[in-house]
Amino acid sequence: MIIDKNAKLYFEPEALPGVKRVAGKVAEDFSECFESDIKFAEKNPDDLFQPEGVRVIAATLGHSAFLSKLISDGKFDENKIKDKWEVYSFEFLPDDNNTLLIAGSDKRGTIYGLFHLSELLGVSPWKWFADVVPEKKSSLEITDKDCFVSKVPSVKYRGFFINDEWPAFGNWTFEHFGGFTAEMYDHVFELLLRLKGNYLWPAMWTSNFSLDGPGLENARLADEYGVVMSNSHHEPCLRHSEEWDLIKGDDTPYGSAWNFDKNREGLTNYWRGGLERNGKFENIITMGMRGERDSEVLGATATLKDNIDYIKDVVTTQNKLIKETISEDLDSVPRMIAIYKEVEKYFHGDENAEGLKHWDGLDGITCMLCEDNFGNLRTLPEDWHRDRKGGWGMYYHFDYHGDPISYEWINSTHIARTCEQMSQAYEYGVREIWIVNVGDLKPQEFPLSYFLDLAYDIDKWGIDNPNAASEYTKHFIDVNFPTFDAAQKKTTYTLLEGYTRLNYTRKPEALNPDVYDATAYDEAFAVMSKTASLKARLVRLWPALSNNPLKDAFYQLVYYPVMAAANLIDMQILAGKNHYLAGIGAVKANECAEAIRKCIESDRELVREYHGINGGKWNGMMLSEHIGFTHWNDEECAYPIIMQVEPANRPRMIVTAGHGKKASQGGDWTRQRLIIDELLNPNVNETYITIYNGSDKELKLSVNGVSEAVYEVKDVTPDWLFVGILGIGLEFNRLQPNELRLILKVDREKLKASGDAVDGVATTTITISTERTHVDVEVWAGTCDDKQVVPMLSKEQLAKVSNPLKKDFVVENELGLTLEASDAKNLSGNEGEYRIIEGIGKYGSGLKAFPTTKYFDPADGAPSAEFEFKVNDDSSDVEVTIITAPSNPVVKGNSMQVGVSVNGSDVKRIATVSEGYEGGERTCPQWAAGVLNQEHRTSFITPVKAGVNTLKVFTIDPGVMIERILIRQAGTEWTRGYLGKTPEWISHIIGD
Amino acid sequence: MIIDKNAKLYFEPEALPGVKRVAGKVAEDFSECFESDIKFAEKNPDDLFQPEGVRVIAATLGHSAFLSKLISDGKFDENKIKDKWEVYSFEFLPDDNNTLLIAGSDKRGTIYGLFHLSELLGVSPWKWFADVVPEKKSSLEITDKDCFVSKVPSVKYRGFFINDEWPAFGNWTFEHFGGFTAEMYDHVFELLLRLKGNYLWPAMWTSNFSLDGPGLENARLADEYGVVMSNSHHEPCLRHSEEWDLIKGDDTPYGSAWNFDKNREGLTNYWRGGLERNGKFENIITMGMRGERDSEVLGATATLKDNIDYIKDVVTTQNKLIKETISEDLDSVPRMIAIYKEVEKYFHGDENAEGLKHWDGLDGITCMLCEDNFGNLRTLPEDWHRDRKGGWGMYYHFDYHGDPISYEWINSTHIARTCEQMSQAYEYGVREIWIVNVGDLKPQEFPLSYFLDLAYDIDKWGIDNPNAASEYTKHFIDVNFPTFDAAQKKTTYTLLEGYTRLNYTRKPEALNPDVYDATAYDEAFAVMSKTASLKARLVRLWPALSNNPLKDAFYQLVYYPVMAAANLIDMQILAGKNHYLAGIGAVKANECAEAIRKCIESDRELVREYHGINGGKWNGMMLSEHIGFTHWNDEECAYPIIMQVEPANRPRMIVTAGHGKKASQGGDWTRQRLIIDELLNPNVNETYITIYNGSDKELKLSVNGVSEAVYEVKDVTPDWLFVGILGIGLEFNRLQPNELRLILKVDREKLKASGDAVDGVATTTITISTERTHVDVEVWAGTCDDKQVVPMLSKEQLAKVSNPLKKDFVVENELGLTLEASDAKNLSGNEGEYRIIEGIGKYGSGLKAFPTTKYFDPADGAPSAEFEFKVNDDSSDVEVTIITAPSNPVVKGNSMQVGVSVNGSDVKRIATVSEGYEGGERTCPQWAAGVLNQEHRTSFITPVKAGVNTLKVFTIDPGVMIERILIRQAGTEWTRGYLGKTPEWISHIIGD
Repeated sequence: MIIDKNAKLYFEPEALPGVKRVAGKVAEDFSECFESDIKFAEKNPDDLFQPEGVRVIAATLGHSAFLSKLISDGKFDENKIKDKWEVYSFEFLPDDNNTLLIAGSDKRGTIYGLFHLSELLGVSPWKWFADVVPEKKSSLEITDKDCFVSKVPSVKYRGFFINDEWPAFGNWTFEHFGGFTAEMYDHVFELLLRLKGNYLWPAMWTSNFSLDGPGLENARLADEYGVVMSNSHHEPCLRHSEEWDLIKGDDTPYGSAWNFDKNREGLTNYWRGGLERNGKFENIITMGMRGERDSEVLGATATLKDNIDYIKDVVTTQNKLIKETISEDLDSVPRMIAIYKEVEKYFHGDENAEGLKHWDGLDGITCMLCEDNFGNLRTLPEDWHRDRKGGWGMYYHFDYHGDPISYEWINSTHIARTCEQMSQAYEYGVREIWIVNVGDLKPQEFPLSYFLDLAYDIDKWGIDNPNAASEYTKHFIDVNFPTFDAAQKKTTYTLLEGYTRLNYTRKPEALNPDVYDATAYDEAFAVMSKTASLKARLVRLWPALSNNPLKDAFYQLVYYPVMAAANLIDMQILAGKNHYLAGIGAVKANECAEAIRKCIESDRELVREYHGINGGKWNGMMLSEHIGFTHWNDEECAYPIIMQVEPANRPRMIVTAGHGKKASQGGDWTRQRLIIDELLNPNVNETYITIYNGSDKELKLSVNGVSEAVYEVKDVTPDWLFVGILGIGLEFNRLQPNELRLILKVDREKLKASGDAVDGVATTTITISTERTHVDVEVWAGTCDDKQVVPMLSKEQLAKVSNPLKKDFVVENELGLTLEASDAKNLSGNEGEYRIIEGIGKYGSGLKAFPTTKYFDPADGAPSAEFEFKVNDDSSDVEVTIITAPSNPVVKGNSMQVGVSVNGSDVKRIATVSEGYEGGERTCPQWAAGVLNQEHRTSFITPVKAGVNTLKVFTIDPGVMIERILIRQAGTEWTRGYLGKTPEWISHIIGD
Repeated sequence: MIIDKNAKLYFEPEALPGVKRVAGKVAEDFSECFESDIKFAEKNPDDLFQPEGVRVIAATLGHSAFLSKLISDGKFDENKIKDKWEVYSFEFLPDDNNTLLIAGSDKRGTIYGLFHLSELLGVSPWKWFADVVPEKKSSLEITDKDCFVSKVPSVKYRGFFINDEWPAFGNWTFEHFGGFTAEMYDHVFELLLRLKGNYLWPAMWTSNFSLDGPGLENARLADEYGVVMSNSHHEPCLRHSEEWDLIKGDDTPYGSAWNFDKNREGLTNYWRGGLERNGKFENIITMGMRGERDSEVLGATATLKDNIDYIKDVVTTQNKLIKETISEDLDSVPRMIAIYKEVEKYFHGDENAEGLKHWDGLDGITCMLCEDNFGNLRTLPEDWHRDRKGGWGMYYHFDYHGDPISYEWINSTHIARTCEQMSQAYEYGVREIWIVNVGDLKPQEFPLSYFLDLAYDIDKWGIDNPNAASEYTKHFIDVNFPTFDAAQKKTTYTLLEGYTRLNYTRKPEALNPDVYDATAYDEAFAVMSKTASLKARLVRLWPALSNNPLKDAFYQLVYYPVMAAANLIDMQILAGKNHYLAGIGAVKANECAEAIRKCIESDRELVREYHGINGGKWNGMMLSEHIGFTHWNDEECAYPIIMQVEPANRPRMIVTAGHGKKASQGGDWTRQRLIIDELLNPNVNETYITIYNGSDKELKLSVNGVSEAVYEVKDVTPDWLFVGILGIGLEFNRLQPNELRLILKVDREKLKASGDAVDGVATTTITISTERTHVDVEVWAGTCDDKQVVPMLSKEQLAKVSNPLKKDFVVENELGLTLEASDAKNLSGNEGEYRIIEGIGKYGSGLKAFPTTKYFDPADGAPSAEFEFKVNDDSSDVEVTIITAPSNPVVKGNSMQVGVSVNGSDVKRIATVSEGYEGGERTCPQWAAGVLNQEHRTSFITPVKAGVNTLKVFTIDPGVMIERILIRQAGTEWTRGYLGKTPEWISHIIGD
């Protein structure tokens, strides 16, 4: 059938108000697309049996005489939807191909069915909340292929939490809606339902959901929509913490003490009031009690048992109140208790105090777990407890305020990681509630969409679909930019994927000038090349959108986050470079200083620009601080210090070698030998010497005496070493660049033929000279070109560089072999399997064992994978470093062991996190470093033999994801940088 | 008699050419002053007996028939001068009061007599070399009071060494004289003789004194003038190291090896050539041999005995060559050997190898000692050896290129220290040669004048005159600015004294942003107040000189060094402040940045200005680098890094307390308790809270709730604590200062009366607030106002601040009692005496024992002095720190002990330098730190009793000069700063 502006849309008078309201929204969608005034009309059931051309009828089981009649007439099989949670059937009437029936199993079933029609029409859930203007069209064709019965959602309650809402969301809603009012929440509820969510934690930072509507209007409207409300984890019985401050008092029925021991009657009154007021709506009631504003309720002297008993007392009272006020059938009343912070201790108990987990008073109450606030699961349901009555929930974060650093102003979630972690949660039985903290909501459109779609359909978007994250990104683009051509969509994909990975690799708030090393691995340059490639794509795409109705949407969903993230990353890297260059006296530092200033200006300009789009619709929404968090909060945040260098009074050359930090000015008294050793690494064919100007005077340079070279320095270097300049000649002054890179490339075939190498290593000296100064750079190069070989120095070679320059040499070297998870071979295992997950993590791939709920024994069928590497000689001390994702043990105290065996040796158990590690505990330094660095590292020493060696890795504890293996000579220092060897996803910047 | 333009000036035809030449210079002086063409005329002795009005006759014993006739006529007592070194008689002819006879014992005696006449005329030695234009006058009266016989100079050979002459002196002389030519040396010789010196080491950095004249003209002219030449310490036999490079060669008679073992014949030829060429002139011949360019001659495998034998062989050969070429009577040929660097080892020998000092081959050769290159004596002649044949010389430095830092571009010598050290050298018998390295000569006019005057007359300008330094400074002003009025002279005195002390306190080249602490003791402010007061004096005085003929002289001798030094000190202090403020995010940092830029511009502008005065006469002379020496040489020198802060996006207050570094922004999450403790110190009545703006937004401040205060915050603080604002109110924004000091003054009388104090300590909190933030500053104040009391905290008080803020508190505190050397009492001793030397050292006074050649025993009449202090309670652990001048042991290995006794306890021996200390050894960190910091420190713990305690200090080893005693509670950290308590000479800045 073809729906056009003449089609009829119907519901019955008895339809649920929420269905009617949503039908109205869908009618608006049609009106917009068809540019015609289209409305759902009320029609009596009897009249609906008359065919009247193209029409859509929305009905809910139990709320539709029309549907009942169809069933009794045998024209609709009610078993398709009956007693199913939030399901709808989308089909033509059997005898009327021009009538589309949307039949919901319940209110939200019908609503999802209605919004599915909008979906088919090409309307994005982000129509209002991200200005995704629907495409104008004249008709929508529905065919048999569109007919289906929806699945029961994978997770029962799926929602988000508007949090940390000042200054951004708060200012915005006060300006546009006069506060946290129903007028504003109307848009939030609609968004939630369009996204197939059903559950909300409202803003609660100086706002009161049940008072601000005005009055109860927020709660009433939510209930009408079918949005299930909770309060956050420390606000029991449908009341807000802000509310307590308003209502408490010695001369009130509530008393003043937030303490059930001291103020049992007052608190009971307070909670009863909340239940009486909001109990008539659909809620999941928060149970238990914490101290005011996220703190412990009892003092430091209370024992664990005191606390457990206290919570039992509280919950028992609350259950009793619920029976009194809502329903005698407690099981029919959705309730939850947060197993969070100190409550976790009470939940587990110890040998002296039985934990709450064994207490039947919690039966039927959903236990809300929480990841570590940084997207990494922790303390998942134990095997015996997984199927408890009431089930499990998960509180996840795309925004967080707390240690070690807060993040909120931009999306820094990479959905591949969310996929991997939340699929694991599902596997662990966390299927009752999924809630995600989205902060101000607005910068989180993309991951929020994914989170709710994943919760709705884990089979489609979960880890068992190896391409889930990538497919979802494309899906998100199709939904929001349906009119883009293929090239535009591809570019948008590159942009979304690019900025979210960069932001995942290091949260922007956790960047500082020292993160990406200014010289090591040239990683600063590599990352800035990546950001440059993203910005270049935007610069190409953006003008073409100037008249596109999706321009504002693109700005919010793509342009702003990409530009703002790239700009901020650039700013911090430039600051690192600025500080390094200032330290060595290079006037290039001053160019960096100017560039930093431009970045700061851009950072502010982007916010102003965002606030101005669509007539100022989003003014205020981007007010959060971006940068320089010195504590977890933004109070002392600061743009980087900018350093300025005063040019030297006389011409001054400054030379650095390769990726080293050491600089020499080559004067008679301060000349230093510089060493380049990275060409010993078979994986490295190219490096450089960087020449800086330390003055504003002209420098006349020569390389091994040659001063006129334009491209290659010929005849004065060994033929196996190309030495050349890209772009410009050797002479430069204040008008020319203050930084010049001499490219060095080794030709290993020529090197072998030259006979220059002793023990596979040759050396030559490149001398950079000015009139008065010169610097000798000793270049070491190896003949080996087998990229599997671990580059190691012989004792003789080490001795040559060990004195007096050992420190210089060893500290600056980057020798070693880097293997990616995707290099794993011979994946096997009887009891489970290893899978390589592509496109995940800091380095680009992960190796993880499934099922994730299982503990394995290397001696008994544990999944295993092999990594091969070669060494030239037997050696007793090679260091292997295993880099894993910053995941936490699935249960507390688990050290996340893996088994390792080199060349068939006995399997050794290696802990990937250290003893005493506590995921999510601010006092655990390894955890805190892990969430900032997005990795954990562990190392062991092993003997190796000449030739091929095999490192076999076995899974033992669940949850570990291996990302990289580093192999290198033990006992030598290793310049780590932040990334080390540039990950392929960063270095790959050509093309879309 | 009155000399006017009609007076006659005579010498005889047989007068020495040098005398004639100098007479010509004196005639020029008269010509200039009298503005008339005046010349010395040659007249036959017989004709001189005819009186002919006013006249001056210059004659030299043995070179004047006229004088011989006077003697034989009994009209001149030749014993006054006969056989005396460089003496002259200045007297009227017995029968002719109109004839002034200047009769010299020898050539230089007559020359000094002639220049003495110029002195009386008011002509400065610096007439040419610092443009000290003589005053025009019509006559000079000479009376009987002017008649005298000069003393034999205290030191026989007195001179300077032009060294490190590139880029400054070198560029200058090439531009003006085409090289290091006789035309230029003419001015140097004249200067030397006018300064009553007689001895010169010529420039030797790419120049050859005996080749550049052109040819031998430099040497010939020196000899004519009576200037005694040497080569520097490693250039034997009157040849230059540069010369060797020109002349050596395998096919020459000299060979190529600078090694007497391998090239005996060649070197013998080389040396013979030097002696034959220059031996006819007056020289002190450098003996012995070192490696080329200041290095060891034999390799590392040579034993001490090998080296000693080698030197003996060399010296024996050289003595033989001198006998052959110059005189059989070796003792008549002045020779010297430098006991310097490795030669010192050979001199002393060890148990296996008898040192050169016992070898009679050195008899008659002056042993040249050297201080530590930083003006501090070391390894002085031992008692038994003091009167050796040939005597001792001292090589001293006003300029140095070497570790730990070079200094040269400005005078950083304080003559009080030179007086003290060189007087000691004299006392130790170093009386044969004094030579001082003056670098480029030009910035060292003042200390060089002093050095040569001291060497000429140790009684007048040495340490036995307690006011020598101060009197000399006045004398220098009288000589060079005779026409200044009393006020101008006084100001000039303040300026000379001020800049030389500041430069002595820390050599400008050794300054960096971290030297003067940005906050501790407010010393940065104190030093900048001092430089400001000097600059203010200049600004007042300078315009008055605009038409003064002495303007250029004043510029060179006073204006430039004061301005340049003050500017550079300011620059470094501002950089320290800039870095500190940038670190805490105060936008005031940006004002500092601007100020630094101005200082950098001034630093360069001053050089340009200097190069332009007097028609460019000194162009090139100030080319040396000023700042940022990262190594001992200037190669990598750099202006300080300038840091820039980006203002925060929202209003931000930053508060610091007292002299502490800790800053708080007072936000909800980052607020920190700040503590002011310095008011516990009875010596401190006043401190401050500093409020910075961290943004460019207006801040509305209140103090304890008061927001309108203009002068004093009243009624909301205890009455014993004045809290007030100087100058401005509490409201400030971008147009107003970004830094505001709240002054805090304690009134101890009111504090006592208030009853607020417990155990003598009261505390109150000052709260600084803005709209959203506030900072609490806890102010601790003590009732004690006895300035002799050591402020100490009780255990209870310490406990109160010890956790968790111990570090903050203890690190930032400045508690303690500072006693100056001048506070010493009851100076006594039988075997010697302690003297308090005023106006010396880093802190302003020194306590030193005399005679300086003597070792003392505290049990047997050693000099002793007492320092009194008080404590409130018995305590077992008070720490006493003795700060001494950075002097070195008079003999190597001496630990410079002093004896200490507290309250009559047994005398304890305390070493003021640590074991293994080696003065002048670059590898000795304590020495290197000492010459940079201008002090040594040593500490000991002692019990004390409640009430008055007496620390008695005894001299043990010679040479120690105590400058300060610090007494404080042991075990607490102490913020040192660079100066600690501001020395009185710095804080005293009002008036001249």
